[in-house]
Amino acid sequence: MGLIFHERVGLDGRRISPFSWRIRCALAHKRLDPQVIPTRFADVARIRTLSGQHFVPIIEHDGQVVHDSWTIACHLEDRSPDRPSLFGGPAGRGAARLVNIWSDTVLARSMRQQIYADFIWCIDPVDRAYFRQSREAQLGMTLEAYGAGRDQTLPAFLEACAPLERTLSEQKFLAGDAPAYVDYVIFSVFQWARIGSPRDVLADTATTPALRYWRARMVALYGGLGDRFAGYPQDRVGPDGRATQQEIP
Amino acid sequence: MGLIFHERVGLDGRRISPFSWRIRCALAHKRLDPQVIPTRFADVARIRTLSGQHFVPIIEHDGQVVHDSWTIACHLEDRSPDRPSLFGGPAGRGAARLVNIWSDTVLARSMRQQIYADFIWCIDPVDRAYFRQSREAQLGMTLEAYGAGRDQTLPAFLEACAPLERTLSEQKFLAGDAPAYVDYVIFSVFQWARIGSPRDVLADTATTPALRYWRARMVALYGGLGDRFAGYPQDRVGPDGRATQQEIP
Repeated sequence: MGLIFHERVGLDGRRISPFSWRIRCALAHKRLDPQVIPTRFADVARIRTLSGQHFVPIIEHDGQVVHDSWTIACHLEDRSPDRPSLFGGPAGRGAARLVNIWSDTVLARSMRQQIYADFIWCIDPVDRAYFRQSREAQLGMTLEAYGAGRDQTLPAFLEACAPLERTLSEQKFLAGDAPAYVDYVIFSVFQWARIGSPRDVLADTATTPALRYWRARMVALYGGLGDRFAGYPQDRVGPDGRATQQEIP
Repeated sequence: MGLIFHERVGLDGRRISPFSWRIRCALAHKRLDPQVIPTRFADVARIRTLSGQHFVPIIEHDGQVVHDSWTIACHLEDRSPDRPSLFGGPAGRGAARLVNIWSDTVLARSMRQQIYADFIWCIDPVDRAYFRQSREAQLGMTLEAYGAGRDQTLPAFLEACAPLERTLSEQKFLAGDAPAYVDYVIFSVFQWARIGSPRDVLADTATTPALRYWRARMVALYGGLGDRFAGYPQDRVGPDGRATQQEIP
């Protein structure tokens, strides 16, 4: 079976995309071992030719091109029903879609503000100008201005995490006793933050203890998949543990 | 099989509790037809004696007393695995717990502010003094003061609903093609509002069209279960379509 995974990469092969991370986890869950094609933003012409759109991740499965992380997850589930299930059936898939949408809107948006000022140092240098220009156009301000209020908005971010914390204080994974796609979706947002910023958004151990333990369990899955690639570039971390902002890349 | 459902009731038998509503739906889903014991707040002594705590719903199942809506749902699922599943398996149950907790905290809290100033007219007259005293102690203000800002906070409520709207624009029910417990949990909050206030929180048809259609489908389930009991008392609705506040009950 031919399976190719076009995965977003950043500086020195770092895995910087939450959307690619959830598919990387889903592939591991399904015990699928695709050929990986690292993809920078600068590779957009190849991606457009392949898929008719510019977002990654993309999989090619026996010649079929599938894009959009949710569509890919459903494709993997439907094409490999004999392998471990990502959803545990139709009702689980329905609820997972709700969790996915909540994650992409409420959680990821709040996380983005926490990490975006640091994140650009993880981007491949050839992609940095594009990343800054496109994101600042979306945000209507510089990345640094966007991230400037993150200490003030950290309590709101942690409040958005409260349903995760309470759920994980009752059960080992979001999907119950064992991880499934809902865990990969939420983990992908925390993994994005782990790699994208030197500052731990869950540093306050009293507020989100269950979420912290769950994150550690998620990092350790599949032979430590969450630590397989480089984290935040240490030469960009100042003595205060935060990203240095002396230069603006 | 002996099955008894202690269900919260209000004025003239109205079903006023979101926690009781989700269990009423779960019982219908499981095709279980319990003996129903209508329970007012004033019946607290009976409830305490029965269960050692004061919250409703409670079920008695062949003599076993089970309280807490989530625990009851899990009990029904585990005791009747041959009947239609509420969760669709362990992964679906895990994700449903997350949705349940999100609903009880984020959604229901935001809904409460939208309806609470009107809600007291649905309460059984013998329970009104207790309801007002206990809720106002929790809130630190009168019910009327609490609800006074609801027009200003309606946009925030609708923003909290955005993941529901987007999910339901893609799939018929939150659990996919057919309703399951995640639908009953979220519906119970909207049903609480349908019965508890004359003002439709989803009145703006442009903002939440999919959520409105879903709510109508949910009301119609099980022979129109959602309309089986009386709604907001019409003698308390003024010419502007809002609850009259001339008297304070």
